[in-house]
Amino acid sequence: MALIVQKFGGTSVADLDRIRHVAGRVQRTHAAGHQVAVVVSAMAGETNRLLALAKAAHPRPAERESDVLASTGEQVTSALTALVLHDLGVPARSFLGHQVRIETDSAYGRARIVRIDAERLRETLASGAVAVVAGFQGVDADGSITTLGRGGSDTSAVALAAALGADMCEIYTDVDGVHTSDPRIVPRARKLDRISYDEMLELASLGAKVLQIRSVEFAKRYCVPVHVRSSFNDNEGTRVVEEDATMEEVSVAGVAADQNEAKLTVRGVPDNPGVAARLFGPVAAAGIVVDMIIQNASADGTTDMTFTVPRADYDQALELVRGIAQTIGARDVRGDLDVAKVSIVGVGMRTHAGIAARMFEVLAAEGINIQMISTSEIKISVVVDAKYCELAVRALHDAFIPAA
Amino acid sequence: MALIVQKFGGTSVADLDRIRHVAGRVQRTHAAGHQVAVVVSAMAGETNRLLALAKAAHPRPAERESDVLASTGEQVTSALTALVLHDLGVPARSFLGHQVRIETDSAYGRARIVRIDAERLRETLASGAVAVVAGFQGVDADGSITTLGRGGSDTSAVALAAALGADMCEIYTDVDGVHTSDPRIVPRARKLDRISYDEMLELASLGAKVLQIRSVEFAKRYCVPVHVRSSFNDNEGTRVVEEDATMEEVSVAGVAADQNEAKLTVRGVPDNPGVAARLFGPVAAAGIVVDMIIQNASADGTTDMTFTVPRADYDQALELVRGIAQTIGARDVRGDLDVAKVSIVGVGMRTHAGIAARMFEVLAAEGINIQMISTSEIKISVVVDAKYCELAVRALHDAFIPAA
Repeated sequence: MALIVQKFGGTSVADLDRIRHVAGRVQRTHAAGHQVAVVVSAMAGETNRLLALAKAAHPRPAERESDVLASTGEQVTSALTALVLHDLGVPARSFLGHQVRIETDSAYGRARIVRIDAERLRETLASGAVAVVAGFQGVDADGSITTLGRGGSDTSAVALAAALGADMCEIYTDVDGVHTSDPRIVPRARKLDRISYDEMLELASLGAKVLQIRSVEFAKRYCVPVHVRSSFNDNEGTRVVEEDATMEEVSVAGVAADQNEAKLTVRGVPDNPGVAARLFGPVAAAGIVVDMIIQNASADGTTDMTFTVPRADYDQALELVRGIAQTIGARDVRGDLDVAKVSIVGVGMRTHAGIAARMFEVLAAEGINIQMISTSEIKISVVVDAKYCELAVRALHDAFIPAA
Repeated sequence: MALIVQKFGGTSVADLDRIRHVAGRVQRTHAAGHQVAVVVSAMAGETNRLLALAKAAHPRPAERESDVLASTGEQVTSALTALVLHDLGVPARSFLGHQVRIETDSAYGRARIVRIDAERLRETLASGAVAVVAGFQGVDADGSITTLGRGGSDTSAVALAAALGADMCEIYTDVDGVHTSDPRIVPRARKLDRISYDEMLELASLGAKVLQIRSVEFAKRYCVPVHVRSSFNDNEGTRVVEEDATMEEVSVAGVAADQNEAKLTVRGVPDNPGVAARLFGPVAAAGIVVDMIIQNASADGTTDMTFTVPRADYDQALELVRGIAQTIGARDVRGDLDVAKVSIVGVGMRTHAGIAARMFEVLAAEGINIQMISTSEIKISVVVDAKYCELAVRALHDAFIPAA
């Protein structure tokens, strides 16, 4: 007998028919003698509908109230899922964030889980009933409802699995698992049977939308075995696991692309100590997350600073940085929205030499100019002209990912 | 400076435009220097939509889960109302049942308030902000969400007013106040300026839908001044107050009709001690509320028992009572759905003699046969053939209610 957390996303609970399908799967797991905690998202489209309502009520709705509104989506699904399970003869009980209880900080709209008291869930599971938990939501120390941000139900599920000491956290979604690249760009992209936590972290941060990045952090920190699989069939999906020796045989696990960034270049920055802090301090203070940063010193004692920001923050960042550039005596600021970040990820990079050089060769052979480069131990990202994005991804996939 | 509770029903918050209208009213009260706690219902139709969803998930949905589902209606309205108040520059904060906190028993779907801890609300009001409370919902000792039954937001409002020691509880609805009769039946029915708690209790229990009966019980017990008025205009409505001497000058305050009951007659019941208990015990155990009961002893040592039950429980009651009738050796059971209960209500009845006799004369003059009679200190109800319902109401209104 195992303790299994099963999480179902919005498309998997889009309507009552889909919820019945989900409940059937839960029933089979329960009938096999396992304890099952189910985490559900809002029905597809519901969160957007609720946030649009908030927006119609106020142009910049207070996040505390937006969260009260948005959290009803998962509340509805959790009750409906419990009822459908009853209809199948499975004892079940719904739990909201404050009932579990899942305590978060008070960063409404993007709250982080602080602690989970899973005692109530444990009692329910021990009694033989299925616990159906509303994902995406928690409660702060003050008792106000919070939400965990887009994809937050993934984090709810993995965090609950960690708190319960679950044997497995199954993430059911509308794709078969984690792929070597986006199949819409690379038709021959294939599903990975296994991926390490670190690789999954990089992929999640690079625009692969299959798991919320914080859920992977949780999984890695608490060694929660995660299985990403389709709710539409019984195929084996992708297991997100601890890195092991066999993984390093494969140099690159995946190729990712992200077109949601924009590039800013501050030219002719006086090359003084502390100038970077004066530039990026106010940007961080404005809540804008800077991703890649490169700096080229010129011969004339000035330097060029180039960095990327989320596309949604581009206008604000450009205005802010233009002001700072004047203050610090830089020459000018240029912005570029037509960029894409293309990345290769794999734990094997640690041991396989020459991956970066090979990547640059592949791009050069396609005539693609590299504007920025950023590397980590298991990832290399380049910024290229947006029009080359798909071509770069396909060329890199062909070069690095062996055919199945 | 007063502390005022303002409750807005479903039609008053039917969409964002109506909510803006409601918020404007709250803003004016707040700007006049008052502390305002607002209680909101679900947007019109929303509770029915949610309960239909529950029904689609399970033919007889578990009430605990139905309540989780249904309570989202008021949750949405409370957040939207707070946001619209922000948009008008009014500080406001939403509160759910478990946040206030409003503790109830665990009778899901028809829970009764056990206690209210209004400390959080008091702090919010003292800080100068408006507290927007989701009506209809509470939380049981176990932390599960409960709902208070149809019209439960009235009870939320009056109970909060009592807990806060409010100076006034304003119930905003889609009619101008409490009328002497249903204006759809009696065109010359007029709005009452004042009505006593006891009269309002009788009217509420007799099918006048303007206030949930439990809200009136709360108001009476804690002497909460209630003002029932329209959210569509600024007219003075009806004040529900302690009875005073001037009220007794008017013998009858209102005429009510209720067509939601059905009549059952058990004929030839052996006239033994304890037979009534054997008949009505199982009916009560089945959760069926018996309203009027009359018993006619016959010359042959048997008796006929006639009583009314809610129309929705008629089939179940008929089957149940037929079984009991056999056990206790009664002759047969007859049922009748085509009945109406017509009532006159007024505290003046205590001091005005002959009201009942006059009522029976009025009905006789119209050729209306009386099937059952039930009286209280301030009410006389008769059951008549359903087809005479409107005629009886109009005739009694003409006879007892002076023209304005």
